Amino acid sequence: MSGTLTIAGLGPGDEALITPEVSAALAAATDIIGYAPYVSRVPPRAGLTLHPSDNRVELQRAGEALRLAAAGHHVVVVSSGDPGVFAMASAVFEALEDAPQWHELPIRVLPGVTAMLAAAASAGAPLGHDFCAINLSDNLKPWSLIEKRLRLAAEADFAIAMYNPRSASRPEGFARTLEILNEAGCGKRIVIFARAVSTSDQRIEAVELCDARPEMADMRTLVIVGNSATRRVGRWVYAPRQVR
Amino acid sequence: MSGTLTIAGLGPGDEALITPEVSAALAAATDIIGYAPYVSRVPPRAGLTLHPSDNRVELQRAGEALRLAAAGHHVVVVSSGDPGVFAMASAVFEALEDAPQWHELPIRVLPGVTAMLAAAASAGAPLGHDFCAINLSDNLKPWSLIEKRLRLAAEADFAIAMYNPRSASRPEGFARTLEILNEAGCGKRIVIFARAVSTSDQRIEAVELCDARPEMADMRTLVIVGNSATRRVGRWVYAPRQVR
Repeated sequence: MSGTLTIAGLGPGDEALITPEVSAALAAATDIIGYAPYVSRVPPRAGLTLHPSDNRVELQRAGEALRLAAAGHHVVVVSSGDPGVFAMASAVFEALEDAPQWHELPIRVLPGVTAMLAAAASAGAPLGHDFCAINLSDNLKPWSLIEKRLRLAAEADFAIAMYNPRSASRPEGFARTLEILNEAGCGKRIVIFARAVSTSDQRIEAVELCDARPEMADMRTLVIVGNSATRRVGRWVYAPRQVR
Repeated sequence: MSGTLTIAGLGPGDEALITPEVSAALAAATDIIGYAPYVSRVPPRAGLTLHPSDNRVELQRAGEALRLAAAGHHVVVVSSGDPGVFAMASAVFEALEDAPQWHELPIRVLPGVTAMLAAAASAGAPLGHDFCAINLSDNLKPWSLIEKRLRLAAEADFAIAMYNPRSASRPEGFARTLEILNEAGCGKRIVIFARAVSTSDQRIEAVELCDARPEMADMRTLVIVGNSATRRVGRWVYAPRQVR
């Protein structure tokens, strides 16, 4: 058994945000596995097999990656952003749990620039103080838990980075999120809508939460709600370092 | 005025984790400004002036960067990790607030791989579900706010990434942190101590929180407390994607 399994993050979109570590892993790979739009970011070449797959088949995809690596392939599982943040790394370890025969496989996780960091950088420094990251999709957890976390995050005065805020199949969750944060007294906080960060489609918008509308977000949007001290300077939004 | 100000993240230590975007900015710079250990990561060359400074002079350093950029220099302010996470970006915007004459300076923030992402990748995928990031230093905020956030984060069942857990001048805060989390019922959660991540000194240790001792952390350690579902598979620690 001389195969390897690497779980790599491609960053938010711009090639210049892919780490050299990840580029080297892609160059050494025999097989690339992942959600089709991410696999399509890896240029084809002789000796490299691309295995694009659909959304929501993370566990099957992880199992395939383990099988190929166990058979001697050099497999890279690609995610956008960082593979450990709402992405493929957890799915691979979940699949590994059911496959003790592969526990000694050489596995590496290669970090990347996750969407909230690129979004924050484009807007200024809204994550410069304590913050949290919440996936607003309720595919894998009950909506009640998301609501509970939003309320506690507001009470803790964390800046809140929201992944997967809104999709065609879940149009109502983000509307409810804005209601909850308004009820929790966050109406005057600044909210950043960062769409398609680091790509040619990038669009950054910042409004007060009470003026935010659900339609301002879609699946390509990363939303950052500032903390109570977050403010504007010129065209930038940032969280002051000092809190009294 | 043709100067520029770039605020860049050098990643956690390994050269292979510096994005090409940041490398290009360093190559085009006339001046590098930052905390001395980070400035020393930039190789000297003709035409490049290095401005290393001490810890805890972030605002003065930010002011110097703005002045040099306004005078026509191409300044890169360097942080380790990501510049927007407990690093220099907020300090630069704070300095900018007092200097309206420089609001139109061309400023860019270039994201990087922040320590918690590299730490998580080394350990597995402990940030694969909702999480928060808390700076345990009380230099710039009251300790009572840190305690409040720790309790609310435990109640929200976030994984908790802790920056600056412990220094020679603040030995007691992290001991208190462990007490608070034990009191909050987190004793059986897995805690990861990730020291000097991505460097040759890297050391990763994972124990149950009730067995964690304050001495396991120092200023080069990033601590990640798993959520209640975080578990081990082989030598890895990960947060399952699904929560019921």
